[in-house]
Amino acid sequence: MWSIIDSTLREGEQFINANFSLPQKKEIALMLDNFGVDYIELSNPASSEQSRIDCTAIANLGLGCKTLTHTRCNLEDVRLAIDTGVDGVDLLFGTSKYLRDYAHGKSIDYIIAKAKEVISMAKNAGCEVRFSCEDSFRSDAEDLVRVYRAVDRVGVDRIGIADTVGIAHPQQVSELVSSLRTVVDCDIEVHFHNDTGCAVANAHSAVQAGATHVDTCVLGIGERNGITPLGGFISRMYADDPEAVKMKYNLPMIPHMDHYVANAVDVQVPFNNYLSGYSAFSHKAGMHLKAMLQNSSTYEALNPDDFGVSRVVNVAHRLTGWNAVKSRAEQLGLSLPDQTIREATKSIKAAADVRHITLDEVDLILRDFDTRQMNKRTDEGRLHGSKSDLPTATEC
Amino acid sequence: MWSIIDSTLREGEQFINANFSLPQKKEIALMLDNFGVDYIELSNPASSEQSRIDCTAIANLGLGCKTLTHTRCNLEDVRLAIDTGVDGVDLLFGTSKYLRDYAHGKSIDYIIAKAKEVISMAKNAGCEVRFSCEDSFRSDAEDLVRVYRAVDRVGVDRIGIADTVGIAHPQQVSELVSSLRTVVDCDIEVHFHNDTGCAVANAHSAVQAGATHVDTCVLGIGERNGITPLGGFISRMYADDPEAVKMKYNLPMIPHMDHYVANAVDVQVPFNNYLSGYSAFSHKAGMHLKAMLQNSSTYEALNPDDFGVSRVVNVAHRLTGWNAVKSRAEQLGLSLPDQTIREATKSIKAAADVRHITLDEVDLILRDFDTRQMNKRTDEGRLHGSKSDLPTATEC
Repeated sequence: MWSIIDSTLREGEQFINANFSLPQKKEIALMLDNFGVDYIELSNPASSEQSRIDCTAIANLGLGCKTLTHTRCNLEDVRLAIDTGVDGVDLLFGTSKYLRDYAHGKSIDYIIAKAKEVISMAKNAGCEVRFSCEDSFRSDAEDLVRVYRAVDRVGVDRIGIADTVGIAHPQQVSELVSSLRTVVDCDIEVHFHNDTGCAVANAHSAVQAGATHVDTCVLGIGERNGITPLGGFISRMYADDPEAVKMKYNLPMIPHMDHYVANAVDVQVPFNNYLSGYSAFSHKAGMHLKAMLQNSSTYEALNPDDFGVSRVVNVAHRLTGWNAVKSRAEQLGLSLPDQTIREATKSIKAAADVRHITLDEVDLILRDFDTRQMNKRTDEGRLHGSKSDLPTATEC
Repeated sequence: MWSIIDSTLREGEQFINANFSLPQKKEIALMLDNFGVDYIELSNPASSEQSRIDCTAIANLGLGCKTLTHTRCNLEDVRLAIDTGVDGVDLLFGTSKYLRDYAHGKSIDYIIAKAKEVISMAKNAGCEVRFSCEDSFRSDAEDLVRVYRAVDRVGVDRIGIADTVGIAHPQQVSELVSSLRTVVDCDIEVHFHNDTGCAVANAHSAVQAGATHVDTCVLGIGERNGITPLGGFISRMYADDPEAVKMKYNLPMIPHMDHYVANAVDVQVPFNNYLSGYSAFSHKAGMHLKAMLQNSSTYEALNPDDFGVSRVVNVAHRLTGWNAVKSRAEQLGLSLPDQTIREATKSIKAAADVRHITLDEVDLILRDFDTRQMNKRTDEGRLHGSKSDLPTATEC
């Protein structure tokens, strides 16, 4: 089964609002470990003195998962990383023409030579090593094959494919991963930015094509609009095989982590966020509600119970239907005939046409119909009683 | 080129928070028309009296785009729809076992017979007609082919493929659309929910496989966590062919519509929303900034100028780099040697290690280094002056 490398404490630290304190980093690492990620990636300890201190602290927390740190492909960064006690280093080098021209100005030959030197040093120090070609999808395919083949031969544990600008789509991902699967023997890690909306689908496509490790962040935070969100990726993989995903990961941790990280970086959990968003399991249309009330799978691919969250069914609006209203009446313990439910539904729609109404108002309308119904029965009983002078069933 | 059917005023009205007034609906319709969508889909006029009034009003606004209304597959709904003056009706019927068992209890033969009757009536009335199999991706493939072939033969304008529960992934979409492309002669519309994170990628995959019409909503609002967002879909298609997308659509309307609709349904635009989110064009890491300052395409697939939004470059944090700091010094008109910039960068990182710092503080640090630099020059000048008694260059 595929593994998750969560990068909330590396890519996520590059989110514009992120400024995690060490206690926050520890809490996030512990939650991710509790959830069951396979790896946690940390910011380069060469970034600043506090980054080095934080990296050392997380690497020595005694987590069940492995710790990695992102480093530039040079001996100084890797030496510093090894000293923190992390299990592995994630090396990267830009191989696209954009990055070669504007970021570092190095040739492919230089990149290969440097990669070999640094990987050998890290492997000799007992480190797990990944080598990633930044901006893979705008790199020349021949360059990629040359670089990946070379690093595979010197014993790298994983190659990394990175869609640094978020431009790839699933078919391209499938083609590139499948083709590299025939070039290298090592594992394949993938990293997808979400600028053009494909970060979850690309991760799924990569796994189907043979990728072994997927980078995620809680809430998807990262540079620009971020990368594959942990919750989104898990939703996708759960849709394919719920049992396998439930077996490996502690799913109810996801909404918990989403809210913790949102608070730590001072943003709201998006209303439409996977699993933890306000509306993720909300249902409204009348047609939908009728079927939902009989079998929730009718309009749900994901079972909210598995993620520790609740379904919200809204019956208080103009698009409501009589089946939904009937169900609400039953929840209130009111036994109204179908014809009365239909009349109540008309009243609810008419009220909602004029202004926003609440569930309380729906309940009032239903109770009002129930009272009228009872009065009607009582009146009928009295009428009947005056004829026979005997008590009726409703009066007993 | 593919066409957009925007459903903010139908699917979007099924978003749990949505309760659009007629003036809001008119404003949204006018903005979508200004943006350049091909169709606007409206809620079923049979939903409520106000829905009928709203539908009639929008259908008669004199928009450049066509108007459609969603209707159940029955003669009463379609008659009511035709009376509102819309250009077309979007019929739907659930064909999956889930929907047949729990929503309506009808057989495929019944569905075909009913569809033929209703389509013929609508076509005779001069209406454009789409017929959609709800929950297509959990429907039996043979059932889909039977139904779509039958409706194509009676002259439907478009068939609709709907991923009602958001369970499809791009490869499945590609296979289904390609196969149906050989079954029907009419256009193919697609509708994707986003529960498992593939709504944008699925729409892209469908277009590549031969779909002609894509359903979107502003901000992606709809049942549960919604459908393909207009901004996300446009970002994806722009990445493939920016010129074609810029030619057909008025792109700067997207952030404007996102904010209007968010306000109307009382949610915040998600921080990571495509194009209009707070962080969509933010850049932070030191390595990224160096290259960004030379060529923004290095770390951007989308040009923010094309969408009427701005880039945000954050240099005030512990992951900053000296190239970014140098650029900020230049923006401030300070001419500092590289060695001084490196020292200033260290000071900025040290300050950011302790607490969150602002751009103002970065500027203060840079100005402080500049002052020290000038004082040093002045002191050196004085020293030199005391020796020679002649004014130095810095004193002139």
